[in-house]
Formats: sequence, structure tokens, C-alpha cells
Amino acid sequence: MPAGELRQSESSEAEAEQWLWAQIKAEARRDAESEPALASYLYSTILSHSSLERSLSFHLGNKLCSSTLLSTLLYDLFLNTFSSDSSLRAAAVADLRAVHERDPACVSFSHCLLNYKGFLACQAHRVAHKLWIQSRRPLALALHSRIADVFAVDIHPAARIGKGVLFDHATGVVVGETAVIGNNVSILHHVTLGGTGKAGGDRHPKIGDGVLIGAGATILGNVKIGEGAKIGAGSVVLIDVPARTTAVGNPARLVGGKEKPSKHE
Amino acid sequence: MPAGELRQSESSEAEAEQWLWAQIKAEARRDAESEPALASYLYSTILSHSSLERSLSFHLGNKLCSSTLLSTLLYDLFLNTFSSDSSLRAAAVADLRAVHERDPACVSFSHCLLNYKGFLACQAHRVAHKLWIQSRRPLALALHSRIADVFAVDIHPAARIGKGVLFDHATGVVVGETAVIGNNVSILHHVTLGGTGKAGGDRHPKIGDGVLIGAGATILGNVKIGEGAKIGAGSVVLIDVPARTTAVGNPARLVGGKEKPSKHE
Amino acid sequence: MPAGELRQSESSEAEAEQWLWAQIKAEARRDAESEPALASYLYSTILSHSSLERSLSFHLGNKLCSSTLLSTLLYDLFLNTFSSDSSLRAAAVADLRAVHERDPACVSFSHCLLNYKGFLACQAHRVAHKLWIQSRRPLALALHSRIADVFAVDIHPAARIGKGVLFDHATGVVVGETAVIGNNVSILHHVTLGGTGKAGGDRHPKIGDGVLIGAGATILGNVKIGEGAKIGAGSVVLIDVPARTTAVGNPARLVGGKEKPSKHE
Repeated sequence: MPAGELRQSESSEAEAEQWLWAQIKAEARRDAESEPALASYLYSTILSHSSLERSLSFHLGNKLCSSTLLSTLLYDLFLNTFSSDSSLRAAAVADLRAVHERDPACVSFSHCLLNYKGFLACQAHRVAHKLWIQSRRPLALALHSRIADVFAVDIHPAARIGKGVLFDHATGVVVGETAVIGNNVSILHHVTLGGTGKAGGDRHPKIGDGVLIGAGATILGNVKIGEGAKIGAGSVVLIDVPARTTAVGNPARLVGGKEKPSKHE
Repeated sequence: MPAGELRQSESSEAEAEQWLWAQIKAEARRDAESEPALASYLYSTILSHSSLERSLSFHLGNKLCSSTLLSTLLYDLFLNTFSSDSSLRAAAVADLRAVHERDPACVSFSHCLLNYKGFLACQAHRVAHKLWIQSRRPLALALHSRIADVFAVDIHPAARIGKGVLFDHATGVVVGETAVIGNNVSILHHVTLGGTGKAGGDRHPKIGDGVLIGAGATILGNVKIGEGAKIGAGSVVLIDVPARTTAVGNPARLVGGKEKPSKHE
Repeated sequence: MPAGELRQSESSEAEAEQWLWAQIKAEARRDAESEPALASYLYSTILSHSSLERSLSFHLGNKLCSSTLLSTLLYDLFLNTFSSDSSLRAAAVADLRAVHERDPACVSFSHCLLNYKGFLACQAHRVAHKLWIQSRRPLALALHSRIADVFAVDIHPAARIGKGVLFDHATGVVVGETAVIGNNVSILHHVTLGGTGKAGGDRHPKIGDGVLIGAGATILGNVKIGEGAKIGAGSVVLIDVPARTTAVGNPARLVGGKEKPSKHE
């Protein structure tokens, strides 16, 4: 991408972030007025901050701190990382939009920012991943551990995750070290992207753009799930799944797609 | 119900609560004497309180508080809600009895009150549901989020749950916005009452009275599980299940009941 | 075992513990130097302690404490129990080695000690189990409850667990009251060793040495899983599985082993 286009893209990303942050503040003001019991919480978490990255860093620091990993240390770590990497901020904006668009139970952007453990775990993972590729592995793993304890979401810091990703409900999600998740993927709770235990090295699934993975699905091994594929709830997938194809069952079989008539939908 | 019967019913509910609370205090006194390491904990959580609703409010406030949602705020919220609605207190009593009767691992009422995350998550949900129907939705959703973080139990505040319900082990339970759970239902851990992702509006399961749902079962869509039905562990249920019928497998098929000989039991 | 051999065995266990603790301190020193943000955490959790049992007791106390179960009380409880029972210390050492050997994502012993919720939950369970067999049941159950809340790992304090056990990822594991787990077993996340709900008394699975249980497998009832057997991810097992045999599917069928050609591997 030429430098001019890059600047334009960054500029429109910054505008999208500004617009979203204004929405979130307006929602928080409305909620604080209608619910005095939440006013102090909403002030400290959203309304007192000057940007989405500051609010998110404060909220994650509070959620993930412990008596030995202080919230101030985590706040500084999150804020420095979000401030220095606009792609992390753009990913957070895309994830907020994805939740708002795809989950009928999501009532507002601030609802997602404050309350969705899948959204929060994913943003904290993005920071852990950045630390991992900077070779700050002990800190990345400490953060990974706190995310797994607090949210019951266990994403290895080396795993690569695209933008516009929805982790719905999120409890029990496990994503292995060499897994890759594309853009605009939706993943329900209790989903495992794991290894078969028979190989080291590159041993985890590769999930294409726009894939939907139902609750409790287990995908094991270095298999490829093609763009727009759907994996049924409770499936155990040990094979490649072609693009725009549905896989269901234990073990999973292909039941629909471009070439096969769908039995599932 | 005529007013006279209602008063009688409320009076007998109050007596049941008094009896249960006396049992719980006696158990806690016995345990505090035999285990000095727990004496201070049992005093602050049970023995210092004058009623079940105060003890439960204190315990839930402590479990669910955070640095930004203070335990005092939550204590007041729980106590005000339990105090003003005798049906919530009666439901807590019925749930305590259900755990005690149905779970062979439950050694006492105080064991359930103090330690069962499914019981505690359900009582906190009942308060969140009350807030939801009073249109205090931001507060209901903040409470929902804390329950999901602390107990790994994710019940949408709009979901309706009957009395005498046992959530056994409870980790990973997900109950969607338009789900309805009847009376005397038993639900094991990792159970999902979810949507299929293909519809908005009324999109979650309706669970009849006395149903038993095994560990890891996934029930999706606006399907009806009839009274006394049994759903096997690990089943994926996308269809209605008639009353007193057993469904097992992925996808689930009906294997027993009034009209079919049972293969499962 | 004659007294002479017992002393030799204890002596070599003590040496193994010394060696491992020296490794952990060296790893922590290296990480503290390379990552100043973690120096204070590593000092308070590892480097300031004179033994593995003190470090582990401090770390577990911090993880499992609450506003009503203080970290100092838990620290004393863990330290007294580990100090007085060398078999618990030997089990912790064997578990650390098992994680390091069997999980390709484990980068160091200190990584496991600090960050593996399965390892930490298992060590805390061993203390709860000791309390249980000493008839200190209310304290054992309080500890059980904290482990289930903090790690989303629910192991009944009466359950018996061997040495060299790997609970990988661990979120959602449920192990019932009369379950027995042998030595050198590997158990992935979301695994249930539960009851069928049809019997009291001895009602949970018995897992032989060297068994591997895949993610999300549900094993129900007083069934026997023989030495070296493998249970596939997502399986629902209601039957005995012979030694060195693989079981997969819902309901699980035997697909390989000494007498049957394997279809799974």
C-alpha cells in the first residue's frame, strides 16, 4: 500500500475510533443518569477517560490485576501497547462493531466494552501476543495466565487472531499456540482449537475468514477450515473443511456447501 | 388464588425459611466449633446475620464485588431485592432443598449456601432478572457480567427460571435471553440453552418442569423439552423432546419414554 | 518396603525437589533480569522463598484467598500440610515434571508453577483431600469451592489422584467424589468424571495409570478405564475401556487396541 493510502486508511481508522468512543461516552452518560447505583462505576471506567484506549486499559487492568500483578502496572502496559500500535486499536474497534452487529443480545457498544468477557479476553490477548512477538515471553505468559483465570478463556499468546472477531459467551474457549483465526470469525463458548497430542511444531487449526464455530465444537490438529465454513455445535473436527461448507457431528462429516446439498440448514 | 390462601401460602413459606435458616445456623455453629480456622469466616458469613436473606446478600456481595463495583453497593442491592420480594426468598429456599435432596455430594444446607457456585449464581441471577423486568437493564447486565466472570455461569438476565432448580457443578452453563426453565429442573455443568444463530426474537429453549439435562448437553433454538424429559450428557438437541422421553446423541435422537422402549436406562 | 529403602526413596525424592527448586529459581532470576515489569512479582512469588513448598503455598494462598478466607490463613494451611507430608511434595514435583515433558507449550518449570491453573488446582486439591481424610470436611469443602471459583476446576476433595498428572488447560474439569485417577494420567480441559445420577455410593470412574483423556470427554458411572487407554475428545463413555484401547464417539465405541486394529491413530 503506498504511503498516501496508508495515511488515509489510518486517518479513517482514527475517525471510526473517535465516532465509536463518542457513542460509548453518550451511552455511559445516559446509563449513569438512569441508574445512580452505576454512576461511580461508569465514571471511573468510561466517563473519566479521554479515549477508548485509556478506558479499555483501565478496565482490563482492574479485571486482570492481582495482589502480585498490580493494576497500575497492567494499566501502563496496556496503555503503552495500545498507544504505540494503531492496528490494536483498529482491531478493538472492529471487534466492538462485530459484537454489536452479530449478537442480538448486545444492547450497546458500552455493554460490550464493559461486560463481554470474550471481547475483553481478546483485547488482552492482542497485547499478550504483541509482547510474545517482541520476545517478552514471561510477561506474555503471565498475562495469558491471568486471562485464563479471570475469564476462563485460554488463548496462547502466540496464537494469531484477525479483526472483527466475536467470542460469544467465551467461557471455556481454548486456542493453541500455533492456531490462526482469520477476520470476521464468530466463535461460541467451549470451542477448542487444539492439538491432537501426536505432533509438535505447527499443530493447531487454521480458521479462515468469516467462519462460524458453534458452541462446544472441538477442532484438533493442523487442519484448515475454509472461508465462510460453519462448524456445528458439539462437533469434533479432525479434517479439513472446504470453504462455505458445513461440518457437523462427532466425528464431523460435511453436510452442505457449494457441491453438497445442505442437510443442516 | 384468593387472598386468604395467598396469606396462608406466604405464611408457610416464611415458616419454611425460618426452619431452614435455623438449620443453617446450627450447622455453621457446629462447623465453627470443630474447625477454628473457619470460625471467623462462618461468623462473618452466616452466624452474625439475623436472616437467610442477609447472609446470602453478604456472601453474594463479597463474591461478586470488584474494585469498581463495591461489596457494600451489591449488599444493599441484594438485600433490598430479597427483602421486598418474598418469591425470591421462597425460590432460594426451594433451591437449597433441591440441592440437598438431589445431589448426593451435598452434606448440609450451609455447604450449599456457602460453596455451590450454581446455587449462588442462580440467586444472583434472580436479582438480575428482577432488575431487568424493572427496566434497570444496565445494572442487570453489570451483575450478569460479574456472575459470568466469578462463577463461569452465564445466564442472561432476561431468562426466566423456576423454583427448586439444581445447577450441579455449574461451570460453563450458558442460558440465552429468551430461554425459560421450569420448576424442579436439574442442569449439569457445561449445558447450553442457546440460539441457532439463524433467528432473532424468541430463539432459545423452553425447559419443562422436572427435566434433567446431563453434563455438556447443548440445546439450541426455540424448542420445547417436555415435563420430566431427560437429555443425555453431551447431546446436541435441535428438536422438541416430548414429556417423559429421553434424548441422547449428536444429533440427539429419542430413545425412550412412554411410547418407545428405553435403550438408555 | 523395608525402612532402609524407604529412607533412600525419601532421600532421592528430596534431592529431586532440591534440583527442581534450583531450576525454578534460576529461571525466575533470568526472567526477572530480562523483564523488570515482572521482577517484583517473581521476587515475592519465587525468589524470596527458601523452598518449593513455601513458594507454592504463598502463590496458592494469594490465588485462592478472598475477603473472608484470608491469604495468611491459607498460606499457613498449605505450608503446614506440605511440610508435614513428603508425599504431597513428591507429587508436586512429579506433576511439574509431567507438564514439562508432555506439554509442548510449557517453556519452563517456573512457567508451570506460576501459570498453569491445572497444576495449581491439583496441588490445592491434594491439600483439600488430606483435610478430607483427616475429617476436616468443612475446611476441605471451603477450599474446594475456592478452587472451583478461581480456576473453574471442580475436583471433589474425596477424589483420589495419583502422581505425575497433567491437567492441560484445565478449565471446566469436573471430578466426582468417588473418582480415582492413577499415576501419569493426562486430562484435557472440560473433562468430566461424573455419576450417572442413578446411583449413590461408589458412583464415579476409575482411571488407570497412563490414561489420556481428550478435551471435552465425559466419562460417567463407576466404570474402569484400563492402563494406557485413550479416550477421544468429545467422547461420552458409559462403559469399561480395556487397557491400551482407544474409545471415541458419543456414545463411545472401542476402535483400537491390542486386539482390534486402530482406526483412530
